[in-house]
Amino acid sequence: VKPEDRLVEKLAALALPGGPVEIGPGDDAAVVAREAGLLAATTDMLVEGVDFLPDEDPERLGRRAAAVNLSDLAAMGAEPEFFLLAVGFPPERGEDVPLAIARGAAARAAEFGARLIGGDLSSAPQIVITAAFWGRPIARPLTRAGARPGDVVYVSGHPGEAAAGLHLARKIAAFHSPAARFAELSANHQQRLLAAFHDPNPRVALGLLLANEGLATAAIDVSDGLGVDAGRLARASGVRLVLERERLPVSSALLAFAAAEELDPVDFAVAGGDDYELLFTVRAADVDRFDERTSALKMTVREIGRVAEGAGAALSGPRGEREIDELGHDHFEAVR
Amino acid sequence: VKPEDRLVEKLAALALPGGPVEIGPGDDAAVVAREAGLLAATTDMLVEGVDFLPDEDPERLGRRAAAVNLSDLAAMGAEPEFFLLAVGFPPERGEDVPLAIARGAAARAAEFGARLIGGDLSSAPQIVITAAFWGRPIARPLTRAGARPGDVVYVSGHPGEAAAGLHLARKIAAFHSPAARFAELSANHQQRLLAAFHDPNPRVALGLLLANEGLATAAIDVSDGLGVDAGRLARASGVRLVLERERLPVSSALLAFAAAEELDPVDFAVAGGDDYELLFTVRAADVDRFDERTSALKMTVREIGRVAEGAGAALSGPRGEREIDELGHDHFEAVR
Repeated sequence: VKPEDRLVEKLAALALPGGPVEIGPGDDAAVVAREAGLLAATTDMLVEGVDFLPDEDPERLGRRAAAVNLSDLAAMGAEPEFFLLAVGFPPERGEDVPLAIARGAAARAAEFGARLIGGDLSSAPQIVITAAFWGRPIARPLTRAGARPGDVVYVSGHPGEAAAGLHLARKIAAFHSPAARFAELSANHQQRLLAAFHDPNPRVALGLLLANEGLATAAIDVSDGLGVDAGRLARASGVRLVLERERLPVSSALLAFAAAEELDPVDFAVAGGDDYELLFTVRAADVDRFDERTSALKMTVREIGRVAEGAGAALSGPRGEREIDELGHDHFEAVR
Repeated sequence: VKPEDRLVEKLAALALPGGPVEIGPGDDAAVVAREAGLLAATTDMLVEGVDFLPDEDPERLGRRAAAVNLSDLAAMGAEPEFFLLAVGFPPERGEDVPLAIARGAAARAAEFGARLIGGDLSSAPQIVITAAFWGRPIARPLTRAGARPGDVVYVSGHPGEAAAGLHLARKIAAFHSPAARFAELSANHQQRLLAAFHDPNPRVALGLLLANEGLATAAIDVSDGLGVDAGRLARASGVRLVLERERLPVSSALLAFAAAEELDPVDFAVAGGDDYELLFTVRAADVDRFDERTSALKMTVREIGRVAEGAGAALSGPRGEREIDELGHDHFEAVR
């Protein structure tokens, strides 16, 4: 038995048992039963030193790789079903690295009903993780197109916390000590911001609710920044999104961080990436029904603006409107 | 419009029109119609400097990324349907690199009926390509398990040519000149070996025929070397594969190459990787029907051995049997 095969066997053991998997990892391809209907599919690649800091905890990386893909399915209103995981890693770091990545991804995916069914391993100069997820839209899928003038704009969670968390993680890494702490920021606030970056919450339940109840006219996951993703939704829908500065959900953790760093928290909320929150639009006539249905989810969902005629995305404040659709995370720039 | 979005739009234009794609690239996930039945899914990651030589032609890399995944579907007897493509690349090499990779992959996949429906781009220190393909097994999927003592072992094509091609490509790269040629080897032979490595032929038609006509008891794609992959099939089936040295399909190109390099061509045939041929087993009672059906494919399919009781894989020659199930390509070793 080749060492590579032993590793594949260990990975296969992470594929959870039960359900309609006909053939799991270990053969040339995985085979699952499929019902008739629609299939939503997405893939995301995470590269060490670009999408995450060097020497991060591999299991947490796996969780994050799953979460960013689950967030894409959430934004389509699709119920996660299965995923494939390809991992490149420097062999000298040991086979525990890909195993921990797969364990983290499988555990995170399982929380949302998705199962690891296959994958690939390769040697690489740094860690590279590519997951491909698919799922089933129960109702008509949510897309970025469909927002109409007069619709209300909502966002889940607290955009900007993840970017603040990355900022914080970089500083901690620069001190080369996990014990390095910032006196200006409480341990709770630090932990919350770091978790927002390291372990984002894909909004699967919200996306399913929006799609299945026909509550949203358009949706996108905020992966690159509220500004740029609002611009994308606006462009796909052929409308303009106007967000109101004072309505942005700025958390006390982000406020404290921004105060300590002497930065504007709204810059983080608008231009920070890696949030994996849902930005979506609701017809004004559906707002009451929307409020009633989403209150059961017990999560922060905030009205932040309106859909207008025109193009682009803007932030409206006391000094007028500022265009924000070019503000966001650049995927071609390294995080370190 | 962000530069990244412009690139995504160009990539989306590569997704071929027509058919049951409800939502193609450009939204959070792609959505396609799905019939009831089975779904076979596979993923492969290719890393520059590990799975291919640096500075290879990007379009050819894309073709190869598609082919290695299509080969996995072929080995399951699944009809290719769709794929996702994630590309990491150094931004300073320009956006033509991921575009050419996607163009090559989409074109190669289209030859086998599979369509690009989505993907992801990331910055990376070197080119990394991960494709995830899925397809539909029409009949019962082919697996590695199912070979029984007495079955006849077959292989398609000419295993070893790809490894010889890589050997040749390395030498050409070392001369830093595409004009470098080996006087001992005809241009035709060189071209054939290089093509075997750079542009493998996934045996989709053969795999579908084997599955749909119930001709094979087990199958695997020879990606890591005939020896190690024979060992994998043997292990999954709980049998022993005995290949006969004199029956191995050694091409005149491989013979000429081996003579020039003073190497044993059988070493390349048995231990060379990257062939993407199918190794499979057929019940002795089905051999006539198999010969009749496969003759229509007009491709080389050679009987190379027998399934026996026991374990492992061996090469039988004038000096007895040599174990070959640990002989093959190591994925954790770089090609350069």
